[in-house]
Amino acid sequence: MVPDHVRGMKCALLETITLQVFNPVVQHRMKKKLIIDVDTGVDDAMAIMVALANPDVEILGITCCHGNTPLENVLKNTLRVLKVCNRLDIPVYRGCSKPLLARKQHAGDYHGKDGLGDVPDPDAPGLDLLQKKNAVQAMVKLVKDNAGEVILVATAPLTNLAVAVQLDPSLPKKLKALYIMGGNTESRGNTTVCGEFNFVADPEAAYIVLDRYTCPTYISTWEFTCRNSLSWSFCDTWLAQCTQKAEFMKKISNLSRMKAQSADYQKEITAGTGFNSCDVYALAAAIDDTLITESEEVAVAVELEGTYTRGMMVVDYIQKLKKDHKAIIMKKVDLEKLKQMLTNALK
Amino acid sequence: MVPDHVRGMKCALLETITLQVFNPVVQHRMKKKLIIDVDTGVDDAMAIMVALANPDVEILGITCCHGNTPLENVLKNTLRVLKVCNRLDIPVYRGCSKPLLARKQHAGDYHGKDGLGDVPDPDAPGLDLLQKKNAVQAMVKLVKDNAGEVILVATAPLTNLAVAVQLDPSLPKKLKALYIMGGNTESRGNTTVCGEFNFVADPEAAYIVLDRYTCPTYISTWEFTCRNSLSWSFCDTWLAQCTQKAEFMKKISNLSRMKAQSADYQKEITAGTGFNSCDVYALAAAIDDTLITESEEVAVAVELEGTYTRGMMVVDYIQKLKKDHKAIIMKKVDLEKLKQMLTNALK
Amino acid sequence: MVPDHVRGMKCALLETITLQVFNPVVQHRMKKKLIIDVDTGVDDAMAIMVALANPDVEILGITCCHGNTPLENVLKNTLRVLKVCNRLDIPVYRGCSKPLLARKQHAGDYHGKDGLGDVPDPDAPGLDLLQKKNAVQAMVKLVKDNAGEVILVATAPLTNLAVAVQLDPSLPKKLKALYIMGGNTESRGNTTVCGEFNFVADPEAAYIVLDRYTCPTYISTWEFTCRNSLSWSFCDTWLAQCTQKAEFMKKISNLSRMKAQSADYQKEITAGTGFNSCDVYALAAAIDDTLITESEEVAVAVELEGTYTRGMMVVDYIQKLKKDHKAIIMKKVDLEKLKQMLTNALK
Amino acid sequence: MVPDHVRGMKCALLETITLQVFNPVVQHRMKKKLIIDVDTGVDDAMAIMVALANPDVEILGITCCHGNTPLENVLKNTLRVLKVCNRLDIPVYRGCSKPLLARKQHAGDYHGKDGLGDVPDPDAPGLDLLQKKNAVQAMVKLVKDNAGEVILVATAPLTNLAVAVQLDPSLPKKLKALYIMGGNTESRGNTTVCGEFNFVADPEAAYIVLDRYTCPTYISTWEFTCRNSLSWSFCDTWLAQCTQKAEFMKKISNLSRMKAQSADYQKEITAGTGFNSCDVYALAAAIDDTLITESEEVAVAVELEGTYTRGMMVVDYIQKLKKDHKAIIMKKVDLEKLKQMLTNALK
Repeated sequence: MVPDHVRGMKCALLETITLQVFNPVVQHRMKKKLIIDVDTGVDDAMAIMVALANPDVEILGITCCHGNTPLENVLKNTLRVLKVCNRLDIPVYRGCSKPLLARKQHAGDYHGKDGLGDVPDPDAPGLDLLQKKNAVQAMVKLVKDNAGEVILVATAPLTNLAVAVQLDPSLPKKLKALYIMGGNTESRGNTTVCGEFNFVADPEAAYIVLDRYTCPTYISTWEFTCRNSLSWSFCDTWLAQCTQKAEFMKKISNLSRMKAQSADYQKEITAGTGFNSCDVYALAAAIDDTLITESEEVAVAVELEGTYTRGMMVVDYIQKLKKDHKAIIMKKVDLEKLKQMLTNALK
Repeated sequence: MVPDHVRGMKCALLETITLQVFNPVVQHRMKKKLIIDVDTGVDDAMAIMVALANPDVEILGITCCHGNTPLENVLKNTLRVLKVCNRLDIPVYRGCSKPLLARKQHAGDYHGKDGLGDVPDPDAPGLDLLQKKNAVQAMVKLVKDNAGEVILVATAPLTNLAVAVQLDPSLPKKLKALYIMGGNTESRGNTTVCGEFNFVADPEAAYIVLDRYTCPTYISTWEFTCRNSLSWSFCDTWLAQCTQKAEFMKKISNLSRMKAQSADYQKEITAGTGFNSCDVYALAAAIDDTLITESEEVAVAVELEGTYTRGMMVVDYIQKLKKDHKAIIMKKVDLEKLKQMLTNALK
Repeated sequence: MVPDHVRGMKCALLETITLQVFNPVVQHRMKKKLIIDVDTGVDDAMAIMVALANPDVEILGITCCHGNTPLENVLKNTLRVLKVCNRLDIPVYRGCSKPLLARKQHAGDYHGKDGLGDVPDPDAPGLDLLQKKNAVQAMVKLVKDNAGEVILVATAPLTNLAVAVQLDPSLPKKLKALYIMGGNTESRGNTTVCGEFNFVADPEAAYIVLDRYTCPTYISTWEFTCRNSLSWSFCDTWLAQCTQKAEFMKKISNLSRMKAQSADYQKEITAGTGFNSCDVYALAAAIDDTLITESEEVAVAVELEGTYTRGMMVVDYIQKLKKDHKAIIMKKVDLEKLKQMLTNALK
Repeated sequence: MVPDHVRGMKCALLETITLQVFNPVVQHRMKKKLIIDVDTGVDDAMAIMVALANPDVEILGITCCHGNTPLENVLKNTLRVLKVCNRLDIPVYRGCSKPLLARKQHAGDYHGKDGLGDVPDPDAPGLDLLQKKNAVQAMVKLVKDNAGEVILVATAPLTNLAVAVQLDPSLPKKLKALYIMGGNTESRGNTTVCGEFNFVADPEAAYIVLDRYTCPTYISTWEFTCRNSLSWSFCDTWLAQCTQKAEFMKKISNLSRMKAQSADYQKEITAGTGFNSCDVYALAAAIDDTLITESEEVAVAVELEGTYTRGMMVVDYIQKLKKDHKAIIMKKVDLEKLKQMLTNALK
């Protein structure tokens, strides 16, 4: 294996070249305006990097939420990702540190104790770089100031979004669209018997968001991401790109990769055995309307009271809920396009 | 169309011939001993008839339970089925008229108001033919008297079984096997958003049975039956057999066939669009060990407390429940064998 | 202190005299017919002895249920009580060993590990003295054979009663009355935050009984017994009677008396600080119609789904439940009469 | 009866005199700083007027919440109260229009359809007088700017408070005290079988506030207010004061007074039959530390999942919840002091 410091040097030249690819010649008015709500673990990091790599995307702000790791880590991790991408200009906001009912739900250490593979950066940016405004208030203001234009991508527990709609009940109507990573369609759990992590981490928030966000809502569920995983061989190729970003990703994803290949994790996944970067699907779908090749529109809700099913997404195929609003549940993805987006993200 | 009385005559001859097929030359000691717990609607009727048609089966008794239709109808319907098959010698027992918590759950009128297609028989046998002993007590005694030999097939809400295990906690250990029609694996509901009828009709009973019946337990779930439905063309052929039994089945199944082909019902089924005689699968699998070609062993439970998920079967793929006992969930069936069994049933 | 064997001798003479008090000269047809459903701990023992001491009472049978202590102990304890009272002629039946949902709820060791103060009797009667018939079936039969005459007194979790009404839905109508020790009126818990032991030990059974037993139903709740406790000085006098029964009671109640006076227990009681023999109130009220001097009629139910309130009795003062059947909730007791009954019980 | 316009004139002179009583000679630094969170119905109006009448109180702001009546009415009603008291200088803020889970809970029309006795004022102040800032953000800022000094009095469903602690988790620590009207101690319901209105109207919010507001917390429960009601004769005298405020109060309270004396309402109250101005107790206690003469400190929580008990306050007398923070539950009030405060409020 090539020592890290050598590889780092070798890559320096390449980067100056690849940087030109990102030259923003696209007209500004065509950019998609995104707010990304994250609980930065490794897959949130990938999602953010996919967004940053796309010249057609303008990130209005990144709002942070408890989730994979405590909020303080989430904030730090987010800044670390932006630093690697040289985009510390993007405003990062501190959001909710606890779910609505304040019952803790640990993500375990799938993404490491610090949420980012336990490979600390001594030169990580400080939290003084955070915006002063609270994430929820920022979300309300950014959406108001860009009414009709903002695509909100949520890859964390939905606490920030749930609080925001209380501050401004008209917020959902002002959104262009909402993309969520979370929930499940077939009662397959990865955290509790029947519950997916992001929804289980704050079931009330998930309920509120699915109930009150009546904008076009796209959901990337646990089963969907399992069924559309990438091969480990792609993963190898992907991380072998000789760039600082690839180096960073390789380091932070090493731990979760090992876990993903463990027997314990195999019980959780509902199909396939590959590389499943959950959060990337929601973000990639938000950026490229052609990514999702199959989906279905169904009313959904969240179970709040079950012993085994608290936090489970409820899919109302038999139309018992009498809900007008239907969510768009992703079913299939164009994997080649996804690979290209991931590849670009590490260039 | 041929008038009924004419067709009846035409068939008379045929029957005397086909009867010989059932000549019980098989050795008595090889027979499978069955107790069938039913809430006789149309599909229970089919299941009973499949059992009666099999020379290797001895039905120790039929225990009746509330369900598709009120208990009084269930009792009457069961006797009608036995009469058509000329087997009123089989003991029929009156069981529980209400679920444990006595909250009613109507099956709607899928099988007709009387549970058997609303084609009343003026000469139906009277309830005086019922056994004096209660179904639950009979179940306890029959299993005790045939310890290790009885296969219990349950195609109704599980109330009788739940009460029986309270009367005799050792009953499950004395069973050879338990076959259940009920529950679901992917939160697909046919009665509530996430609930299958038999389990929703008495969630506590379903919970108790899945918890305390630690004998080999085979479950034919809603999704399984949907995915292994038969074609309508087979159904046509099947009912076209020129026998009294086929006449009877044609009459009683007419209403539910129309309903099965309605748009409303299409929302419920999870796959395929054919003829799904739910209760037959469990019984057929109990009779023929080679019928099920694919299955999986997983611990299961029943959600009791959810708003949307009460009565839903919980499948513990990620082994959070720490249950030693696993159920065998049917996945695929040998359709040709099933067709043959159904065909024999109407001969 | 007088050694036990000396005291025992001293008392022998007295007993031959007092025995005559019980000479059953009362006319047989006036006797109240009781079935007592117990989970014999110390207070059940007191209740049984109060019943045995009353010449106007005929005990048709004692049905045993899990509760204060595992069923095997309950059976043994009940026989021990009957032996001390020289009434092993009374039939004792084995009932349910687990609550309906089979989730264990330990009573702690308030009545000792064996439920009877941990003072084992080497000459305790064997379980071969039990009736062969199951308690639930016996209950159904005894009530049927004495329709309109039986007073059922339940001082245990209500599992046996809940199963009985499934076997015979007409059982409640055949009862003269039902007396229950259990539940609470003001959400004061002695087992969980809001739950009384007997109801919490089988919430579904309590729900079923309050729902389906539409006979006159008298409830002795936790708060009621706390507010009508006896003084410790009475207790001293009571146990100082020089009889074998008093000796027995003194021994078995010693442990729970110490516990009753501990700080931990003081938190549970809702009023007073005295000697609260919970189960005695229900039984004494069943025997003497004038014992209860104040009561109220209200519809009641049992909460099954709460996090804190599962098993709590729900009192419908504002008539939201739309229930026709009202229970009679005991409020005040004639303490002098109660003392007399207790005193007689140890003579 | 004296016609309104005549009485109005007669009162004009009196008012100019009584106004001097309120001359704020008290030193400013001694004033208690209050934020009042209301869902202005008639009793909130009384509470606000009691606060306004007290020279030692400075109202930093009134935050409005859904509850007795829709938020738009609450806002209007609050302004009407301030106008009558000539205190439109006090900032009024628009808060949450729906409970966290957005399930509606109507208060019925106890306070009239408009929440204020259905006696509309054609000259009511317009909503343009409202502050621009949202109530929750205002609450966060006011408490921050007056850290350690603010007493928060909440007489509405607790939605605003629940959202505020998500925006600023340190808010509770910055409060001097919190006074709540809501909840119950003995499972006595006035809205559902076991639930008090304010808590039932947003159980999750009540749960969050009791869980996360670890400042000194005083609770005026439903049973407490019922047991400390005032006589109707006092009410007569009180409203007979010849002032504009008394006229106003007489008009707006007429409807709820009639309802309070109806048979239906009698079922709800747990004791007494008098005039129970629920919201006044919490506010009066906040103003005068000597008003409450008896109270108890106990840990509390809110049941979220029960069928009958959802929204019920759970009082942990037996210390099962292992909560460090205890609430102070009001038990008895100095009625004479309360009367004086009420009397002053209409001067």
